[in-house]
Amino acid sequence: MTDIQKLETEFRQYIKKIEDYGQALAVLAWDSRTGAPKKGIVQRSEVIGTLSSEVFALSTSEQMGSYLAELREKTVYNQLSEITRKSVDECYKSYQRNVKIPKEEYKEYVMLQSQSESLWEEAKDKADFELFRPNLEKLVEFKKRFVGYWGYEKHPYNTLLDDYEPGVFVDTIDKVFGELRDQLIPLVKGVMESSHQPKTDFLFKKFPRANQEALSLDILKEIGYDFDAGRLDETVHPFAIGINPNDVRVTTKYNEDDFRVALFGTIHEGGHALYEQNIAQELIGTPLADGTSMGIHESQSLFWEKFVGKNYGFWERNYDVLKKHSSGQFDDVSLEDFYFAVNQAKQSLIRIESDELTYCLHIILRYELEKALMEDKITVAELPQIWNDKMEEYLGVRPSHDGEGVLQDVHWSFGAFGYFPSYALGYIYSAQIKEAMVKDLPNFDELVRKGDYAPIREWLTSKVHQHGKMKQPAEIIKDITGGGIDSKPLVNYLTEKYRRLYQF
Amino acid sequence: MTDIQKLETEFRQYIKKIEDYGQALAVLAWDSRTGAPKKGIVQRSEVIGTLSSEVFALSTSEQMGSYLAELREKTVYNQLSEITRKSVDECYKSYQRNVKIPKEEYKEYVMLQSQSESLWEEAKDKADFELFRPNLEKLVEFKKRFVGYWGYEKHPYNTLLDDYEPGVFVDTIDKVFGELRDQLIPLVKGVMESSHQPKTDFLFKKFPRANQEALSLDILKEIGYDFDAGRLDETVHPFAIGINPNDVRVTTKYNEDDFRVALFGTIHEGGHALYEQNIAQELIGTPLADGTSMGIHESQSLFWEKFVGKNYGFWERNYDVLKKHSSGQFDDVSLEDFYFAVNQAKQSLIRIESDELTYCLHIILRYELEKALMEDKITVAELPQIWNDKMEEYLGVRPSHDGEGVLQDVHWSFGAFGYFPSYALGYIYSAQIKEAMVKDLPNFDELVRKGDYAPIREWLTSKVHQHGKMKQPAEIIKDITGGGIDSKPLVNYLTEKYRRLYQF
Repeated sequence: MTDIQKLETEFRQYIKKIEDYGQALAVLAWDSRTGAPKKGIVQRSEVIGTLSSEVFALSTSEQMGSYLAELREKTVYNQLSEITRKSVDECYKSYQRNVKIPKEEYKEYVMLQSQSESLWEEAKDKADFELFRPNLEKLVEFKKRFVGYWGYEKHPYNTLLDDYEPGVFVDTIDKVFGELRDQLIPLVKGVMESSHQPKTDFLFKKFPRANQEALSLDILKEIGYDFDAGRLDETVHPFAIGINPNDVRVTTKYNEDDFRVALFGTIHEGGHALYEQNIAQELIGTPLADGTSMGIHESQSLFWEKFVGKNYGFWERNYDVLKKHSSGQFDDVSLEDFYFAVNQAKQSLIRIESDELTYCLHIILRYELEKALMEDKITVAELPQIWNDKMEEYLGVRPSHDGEGVLQDVHWSFGAFGYFPSYALGYIYSAQIKEAMVKDLPNFDELVRKGDYAPIREWLTSKVHQHGKMKQPAEIIKDITGGGIDSKPLVNYLTEKYRRLYQF
Repeated sequence: MTDIQKLETEFRQYIKKIEDYGQALAVLAWDSRTGAPKKGIVQRSEVIGTLSSEVFALSTSEQMGSYLAELREKTVYNQLSEITRKSVDECYKSYQRNVKIPKEEYKEYVMLQSQSESLWEEAKDKADFELFRPNLEKLVEFKKRFVGYWGYEKHPYNTLLDDYEPGVFVDTIDKVFGELRDQLIPLVKGVMESSHQPKTDFLFKKFPRANQEALSLDILKEIGYDFDAGRLDETVHPFAIGINPNDVRVTTKYNEDDFRVALFGTIHEGGHALYEQNIAQELIGTPLADGTSMGIHESQSLFWEKFVGKNYGFWERNYDVLKKHSSGQFDDVSLEDFYFAVNQAKQSLIRIESDELTYCLHIILRYELEKALMEDKITVAELPQIWNDKMEEYLGVRPSHDGEGVLQDVHWSFGAFGYFPSYALGYIYSAQIKEAMVKDLPNFDELVRKGDYAPIREWLTSKVHQHGKMKQPAEIIKDITGGGIDSKPLVNYLTEKYRRLYQF
């Protein structure tokens, strides 16, 4: 072994240890959320704290610093394997993030975060923005100062975006979100004003929990989720978690009065899980065995939820499966009526209750506010008013109080500025991916109608899944479409679909 | 703070970190056994390996060595809190164990262990002792050499016992096991020869899985298992695991053709769990927040399984509960016939299928063989023959092949010599504890008949549970009974019960 090979091996062992701790933390997180007994919460958070501190210590140690200095030296770097090079890049990025903030200041910030989350909950329940305002102001100030420490190019918000959507910048988002907003507003208006509206009463009849569970298991198997590398559980807040590509778990929630929550939720989380199950095995033990960004991750869950689960052909095939599991609630409902009902679009004050047509407008609003805060163009105190005005402008509805307005989301309470855009980017990516896929698989609709998902999964694995963090989001989109991030495929999909459904 | 207080605080933080890793490992173990996906096994064992190595490193570090040297210095030691003193003792014990074995030799041993377990499985399936013999010989040789490194007092087997039953020695076990064996052999003979035998066909009718689960939940709640500090799951091999006293989980197994497996198994694991749930909170974060020995742990599971679950009063109260959950299999069965059936005793070749009357004879046989091996009085090659002869002498049955004889247990395949005695000690302790408890709670049977377990649980918590590892097994028995380990209460219980049931 040469000295460089020896150094590379040592570094890979070092980061493997960090990844092993990370996997233990992922199991603890899964366990805490799926059924760990409540009296154990205090102990559990101490155990998580101990392991997280160790991960932080290993990631910011002098040892890590010296590995990075040696490995980033150009002649060395060029001799490393590609996986090691990308791992060095990832480690360097988080090393820089972590060592640049003064320790005391970071500690203050973490304490503020944990206070703010419960304060936010109280403020939301009481619809009292003033209660939360002082903390939100401090959180914004911290983030601005952190950006100061980290530095930025062109726009301070770019540095925040980098945590969730590396390589995607404000100028791109401004462009695609602007186009999307301008196209969606009239489309939503058209849908709302249409006289052709779906009947939906049959959606809300009793669908027993056990039957929904059987249905969820059937559908997950159908789309190719590998139960030998995962499991399905029930939680209040559904999620998917990749412990490693061979152990990717999903959860769902059963609402007996609305089967859609579990059914489409399961497909959504299943889409996240398919991504993580198909990351290349050779990336295990590095920071690259993970989704490349929040947005690309969301594109995968949305692809399966929208382009498969809400595909007409999917229901041609599966409506009978649904009927078999249900207690007769669809006996007198035609496939067409059913299909229209599950694709109903309507304005909603609440983001998480909104549909695929209106969802992105909720996100664009949040992005515009976050960016304006970072630019000092608006103050925290002005948020509720601007929020309500924008809701009226974009969606034609106005919150009657801040609990259903500016206070509705948890994200800001833990300082997650820059996170929201990923949700809409996920929609945009998924439509771009779908459009490109159809060029390779022109019989896409037929494949879905036949339940022959293997070609679809293989396409996604080859273009997206396997790469993990080896490719950045924009790189994935470029390699798939030949171009950049573009809202047109999403606009075309929504326009065509909703004009047809609502007949205008 | 004085220097000693400062040192004590630092040490406590140090061992708290070890305990936090231990809790993470316990969650990983629970997860691996309850439903972790099978493709994740390799990754999982690497994560467990990484965390275990860290625990080993922390437990044997120079830092630990210097803490122990400073804290064990007499004038310092005497100023420590009792919890810290006992923690120092525990840490010193495992430190000594670990640092005395040459690293290379220990590594060889660990590799031999992992080879041997799968080899044992194959040998057992093929009933081929010769296949396993070379490995078993090496395992015995390793253990003898380890005892050489560790040193021993009076008898080398005492050092092995110390891993499972600290403070209990060969001379005591020889005495109590000898007495027990001499009393049990004729008693078993009497039962087998009795013309009064139970009808048992009704035990083996179909009892749906879901109903058994509901029954298990009911019974666990009834005996006072705290579901806010635990949960019940299903596994092939039932177990209880204490992650910490606020998170103690049990599992059970549902056999639709034999409800007894789940019912009595659940009560048994529930007994283990009650022990761990009631360990004093102040011991959390030290190595003392655990059962004090395998034998005392087993005494708690057996207490609930035998003295509560097989108490006639328990069934006066719960026979209707059982009937309610079952599908009519007991409709024509009197309580007396039912009670006799679930207390059936018969000779069995297989330890884990045996009943409370014959169980200890299986253990005594194993103890005698292990001790003779350590004394070089017999060789590994002679084991099958001696095993079969003893089975015939003690239980009147002879294995037809080694798969149902000397190869039946997994323990030796991972070098666990000295473990078996704990099972019979658990029986002995539980009867001693019961006898002492009845002096304080003379209405014991009535309490069970009324389902009023609080006084029983409180008694056990005050005498056993709360102390964790603060008291050694013999100390607990002495404080409860005023005397030493004694097989008479068990002999009296079994003699009285089985003479009455079998009318001889």
